Amino acid sequence: MTLPEKIAQLGSRWAGNDMADHDLPEEETINVAPMEDVFATGTSLSLEAASEHGLGHLTRVWGSVPRSVEDGVAELVRQHKAVLAGSRLGVPALVHEECLTGFTTYGATVYPASIAWGATFDPELVERMAAAIGRDLAAAGVHQGLSPVLDVVRDYRWGRVEETIGEDPYLVAMLGSAYVRGLQSAGVLATLKHFAGYSASRAGRNHGPVSMGRRELLDVVLPPFETAIATAGAESVMSSYSDVDGLPASADPWLFTDVLRDDWGFGGTVVSDYWAVPFLASMHRVAADTADAGAIALTAGTDVELPDTIGFAGLADKIRSGEISEDLVDRAARRLLLQKVKLGLLDPGWTPEGSVRDGGVDLDSAGNREIARQLAERSIVLLDAGSALPLRPGLRKVAVVGPIAGDPRTLMGCYAFPNHVLPRYPNHGLGVDVTSPVDALRNELPGVGLTHVQGCAVTGDDRSGVGEAVAAARDAELVVAYVGDLSGLFGHGTSGEGCDAEDLRLPGVQGELLARLLETGTPVVVVVVSGRPYALGDIADRVAGLVQAFIPGQEGAAAIAGVLSGRIVPSGKLPVQIPRHVGGQPGTYLQPALGSAESAGISGLEARPLFPFGYGGSYTGFEVGDLRLSATEIGNDGEFTATVRLRNIGERAGDEVVQLYLHDVVARIARPLKLLTGFARVSLEPGAAADVTFRVHADRTAYTGPDLRRIVEPGDVEVMIGTSSEDLPCRGFVRVTGDVRVVGHDRRLTTPVEVTPVAGTGAGGG
Amino acid sequence: MTLPEKIAQLGSRWAGNDMADHDLPEEETINVAPMEDVFATGTSLSLEAASEHGLGHLTRVWGSVPRSVEDGVAELVRQHKAVLAGSRLGVPALVHEECLTGFTTYGATVYPASIAWGATFDPELVERMAAAIGRDLAAAGVHQGLSPVLDVVRDYRWGRVEETIGEDPYLVAMLGSAYVRGLQSAGVLATLKHFAGYSASRAGRNHGPVSMGRRELLDVVLPPFETAIATAGAESVMSSYSDVDGLPASADPWLFTDVLRDDWGFGGTVVSDYWAVPFLASMHRVAADTADAGAIALTAGTDVELPDTIGFAGLADKIRSGEISEDLVDRAARRLLLQKVKLGLLDPGWTPEGSVRDGGVDLDSAGNREIARQLAERSIVLLDAGSALPLRPGLRKVAVVGPIAGDPRTLMGCYAFPNHVLPRYPNHGLGVDVTSPVDALRNELPGVGLTHVQGCAVTGDDRSGVGEAVAAARDAELVVAYVGDLSGLFGHGTSGEGCDAEDLRLPGVQGELLARLLETGTPVVVVVVSGRPYALGDIADRVAGLVQAFIPGQEGAAAIAGVLSGRIVPSGKLPVQIPRHVGGQPGTYLQPALGSAESAGISGLEARPLFPFGYGGSYTGFEVGDLRLSATEIGNDGEFTATVRLRNIGERAGDEVVQLYLHDVVARIARPLKLLTGFARVSLEPGAAADVTFRVHADRTAYTGPDLRRIVEPGDVEVMIGTSSEDLPCRGFVRVTGDVRVVGHDRRLTTPVEVTPVAGTGAGGG
Repeated sequence: MTLPEKIAQLGSRWAGNDMADHDLPEEETINVAPMEDVFATGTSLSLEAASEHGLGHLTRVWGSVPRSVEDGVAELVRQHKAVLAGSRLGVPALVHEECLTGFTTYGATVYPASIAWGATFDPELVERMAAAIGRDLAAAGVHQGLSPVLDVVRDYRWGRVEETIGEDPYLVAMLGSAYVRGLQSAGVLATLKHFAGYSASRAGRNHGPVSMGRRELLDVVLPPFETAIATAGAESVMSSYSDVDGLPASADPWLFTDVLRDDWGFGGTVVSDYWAVPFLASMHRVAADTADAGAIALTAGTDVELPDTIGFAGLADKIRSGEISEDLVDRAARRLLLQKVKLGLLDPGWTPEGSVRDGGVDLDSAGNREIARQLAERSIVLLDAGSALPLRPGLRKVAVVGPIAGDPRTLMGCYAFPNHVLPRYPNHGLGVDVTSPVDALRNELPGVGLTHVQGCAVTGDDRSGVGEAVAAARDAELVVAYVGDLSGLFGHGTSGEGCDAEDLRLPGVQGELLARLLETGTPVVVVVVSGRPYALGDIADRVAGLVQAFIPGQEGAAAIAGVLSGRIVPSGKLPVQIPRHVGGQPGTYLQPALGSAESAGISGLEARPLFPFGYGGSYTGFEVGDLRLSATEIGNDGEFTATVRLRNIGERAGDEVVQLYLHDVVARIARPLKLLTGFARVSLEPGAAADVTFRVHADRTAYTGPDLRRIVEPGDVEVMIGTSSEDLPCRGFVRVTGDVRVVGHDRRLTTPVEVTPVAGTGAGGG
Repeated sequence: MTLPEKIAQLGSRWAGNDMADHDLPEEETINVAPMEDVFATGTSLSLEAASEHGLGHLTRVWGSVPRSVEDGVAELVRQHKAVLAGSRLGVPALVHEECLTGFTTYGATVYPASIAWGATFDPELVERMAAAIGRDLAAAGVHQGLSPVLDVVRDYRWGRVEETIGEDPYLVAMLGSAYVRGLQSAGVLATLKHFAGYSASRAGRNHGPVSMGRRELLDVVLPPFETAIATAGAESVMSSYSDVDGLPASADPWLFTDVLRDDWGFGGTVVSDYWAVPFLASMHRVAADTADAGAIALTAGTDVELPDTIGFAGLADKIRSGEISEDLVDRAARRLLLQKVKLGLLDPGWTPEGSVRDGGVDLDSAGNREIARQLAERSIVLLDAGSALPLRPGLRKVAVVGPIAGDPRTLMGCYAFPNHVLPRYPNHGLGVDVTSPVDALRNELPGVGLTHVQGCAVTGDDRSGVGEAVAAARDAELVVAYVGDLSGLFGHGTSGEGCDAEDLRLPGVQGELLARLLETGTPVVVVVVSGRPYALGDIADRVAGLVQAFIPGQEGAAAIAGVLSGRIVPSGKLPVQIPRHVGGQPGTYLQPALGSAESAGISGLEARPLFPFGYGGSYTGFEVGDLRLSATEIGNDGEFTATVRLRNIGERAGDEVVQLYLHDVVARIARPLKLLTGFARVSLEPGAAADVTFRVHADRTAYTGPDLRRIVEPGDVEVMIGTSSEDLPCRGFVRVTGDVRVVGHDRRLTTPVEVTPVAGTGAGGG
């Protein structure tokens, strides 16, 4: 291959994303990627011209414009042919799409947002979802999906919290790996993003500078990536936009070469986040121009530039002038071409038409919707059943209020096509059938008179509708208030990419609406449908019931209604804490003593959340007890098992998530008081019991020591098992013996769990 | 010396600080140091027993109990004798005290809080203050003062913001070094604290974990310490309580040995913050017990444990068992004994009685108060003269409201004796004469009818007084509302050590009080007297005048009144920004593009403050212009001068602070868009002009590069000069040429400034 041909493989083109095509007034712009209005308009190359020497990736052929499946196939074939027409070697482009909450294309099933997967604590179900997504992508001729997001939440104000799986590295690692396995089971490459540190930007400001040392990066941020590569074989990694301690990720060879390649042995591709390469010049100012940016990003370890070739357009000159070595291009091109070979793109007989499944694609199949339903149902978190939940039979008059109740878009995340792209095409509806929360509640409670009053919008300070809502509340036996977020992009939502929050107040005047409703004296059940946790300390002790639904997807409204009515026994668990106060960020459950309530004498700030990580209520009851440790001492390379008995002591069948936390009593570093190290979702009939056994290797106690090496250290480890990070009745100690042992990438990254029904209790499997 | 004798030198005893002596109800405890109730009660050794082998330091003999100078001298002599009586070698103890806003003892002058020094931008005046403090300390037989605080503000919510000199490393470095020079000019050792990273604790939580990489530490946090050691010869450094990236400062040999000793050549002592050694065990959990904690702290580089010997009490066993080397004890003891030699403690003829100035000490002399007055006057920041400032002559009826107006304690910081210790002795008054803001205004405006209504307390949610305040406002021509903080310790204040804030709302219901006053339609002048900046975005465009007084000390009330009346032309400049919104922390003016308003398309969060760093209005007018750069290119070891002309274009004599900021246009690291690199306070008569010349060496552009070495890098540097970080009319570029140059501790740490009166304009000196 010639140098231009190799470089062309490292590039991409977002054809067919012309802003002029949108159904918007001329003066209005909605970006679907940061600063798209700046960058997309600066890239006017035709696809043919962009492919003169071939092309690495085709960007979002499906996901940019609402069109039918037939038109989508036709457009894909057209773009493939354009690439092939111009290129001497006939190497097809790899086709990538967004797919975080389902295939981000018109008419495709919208699954719950990632934060809701987190609330399920259910890797198996997430894997099934991702497999379904993968099948649809593969059928549509897509080779790579730009998911999952493995950023560990560090600040609830960040807009992209909804795209994450929560604030615990192990939960993110396990569910993220499940997603990877599912997607890749369909032959579609998963992309781990964003590598690394993005979620900890200062004050939650999107792309903002990240103050973080390498130890926090190694112990909190990187493990999900490492786990998804080591245990699920993830094939691609996307660079983060942010800098960490001043160094932009895309300019950091330590991250992309030392850690990712040398330590972890990653063999796939690193793709840039959209325009992350030119951002090195325009926003980070670590490059003089886009060509410099391209050289820096390639050197650090970016293989493919997305969504258009901008920075890499200057690589040939940089190589000819001797500024960088052609070896760097060879390295990247080899990685991408290897993927193309594995994907069959270079097989004889490959054709554009043949790359799409014959007979078309049903992007919103009943099977998809069934998975979406199950995920939604398992993700709803009952914070407080209060006096009103489940709703008592015989209710006659219920006032349904709040801006979420009537708007199906509030059920979908910012990477769902209806919220991601359709705001540019306001005349296209949603493309999928989505029941609103109020309609679902109406279906759920057929005999009950429901009055629906919005009260206020999701955002803005218009209070003119509050009076009517209050009147409806006064006139009702019960109020169900649906409040929370409308996801969107870059200022067009209250949650989602570029929609960061100053603090954790409910958006707009929704908090005031709740206060007014509570003043009426009518019992108020509050359902928060949101992408981030909001501070509920002001209302929690005055409500008649409190439910947290993280953006639950297309089938979410019925799931919420089912939890309210009692048809569904709730089993979701908090993947992020619900704070008491609007301030106090950043802060998650991962705290050493001095970030916790144990330091109450040192700072007057409240450290306890309103509802802790891992918490979620139920309509049945569970008891966890009878801790059995297989050993009180293990060697520094040994393992032990911890078994507890879970019993359903309530009246209904239900699921409980048994959670194992470890605490290193004395370490060389200030370590969190609790760290989730294992979990299992267990289904039990009333009266049934099961034994849950965690197999914990000494590796699982490892952390990054003073000299930045990861070590297993001798000493006591406290083992805590229960049903939330604060409800841990089973406690014991295991002593690790021997010398300090340095561990590497071959260490155990997971904690196997076995669930054994207890004979004679009527328990099924876990 | 025997091993026990050497170890004894590394210890200390806080005798005479018995909680049982306080004038408080038995159930009430007020801590003056974190967790004092835990640690102080656990240390019941008599001074005699504690000094069996000698003693390193005597802790706060003066500063713990309110007593007369005579009684203080007697107590000091008693304690010295107790130490000498028991020790074989007769080495006297070194006596240390707190002295941040003046000698922290009963009856001593209370100077403005450090944050107010920051607002003066006046190193010469700070040096004079510190010299006066040093003279009083020396006269009282004190050898070491535990000041200044050189923490650079990173989060406005942190309670100790009032103890800092602001959010800019250079401002902190220059004023902090001035303090050191002043204090040490009297023969009293200064103590730089807190080394290092303390101010960046997560969510502003005191002692909370610090997420920070080494680059931020090297470029933002450490330079003030380095500057105070290199340019002012600071003799002692105090360890920080926090961990940085998991490693507690007191357990970090990189900080205390590699950086402080090896790189910087520091030869003085490192003292622990109070109980920072046992905190390694009880709070950081990096030590199994206090003996382990002592061994870790000594190894890392702590020389002297304060305020009592707890962790170091186990050193002898650790050495005998071979866990640590006796060399570590020798190293520390040598450092302390060298200080004692230099202080003359080992001179023949030294006596306890002779260590105190003959004839007693006047702790609140007229000279002291004059310095306090000047500092206060130069620290008041006019945010907005509005329609009402300076107050027009002929006012007849003014309502003075707000909880600050009548309370002199609000003028004093948390390390002023009245707020630090006297809350334990409520029957002792303040010990010094302090005029309240309302009384000062009454004195200032003799012919004006002032009504004084408090309206509400500083804290709490009692709104019962608001009605009366509103009535008074309705009845007046003008309202002057004094709102803000009452400093205290560990929950007994709204600002100060252990008094962190959830967010940047004015404390208690003061914000509501202002809203209600503004609704009356009577013009409202708001004076914020506070230790941290509060969000004023909700009121700023509705007030008739807005003044920020950072805790201005004993003479502060008259200074505020003088600014209101126009007697004083305000000249204070913001050392911290005034935010618009209550959220958005952490965040200061030091931001790269992605933390700034330049990233508006990427995050919807507002990045602009309400009033920027360095801002402050005046009653006269200044013009800065005519930038002259001595060169457009310099070598990587060269220098240039930048000269501007400052002209007083108003009607009154006044001071302006000319500020130089640099911006590295393209760097290897995401660098701040503006970094204060030089400043000069200049006094000018009306019509007068002066040339201000900054001499900038290439070293001043150095930053910590990708490999953590500090480098001067070739490329363009933007030079910006003006009167605040946002008002920088003079702009030019200087290109640094040559190769990348690695710089060390011998680099230029300061930017010399010369102020030259322009002949014929009537200008005096700067």
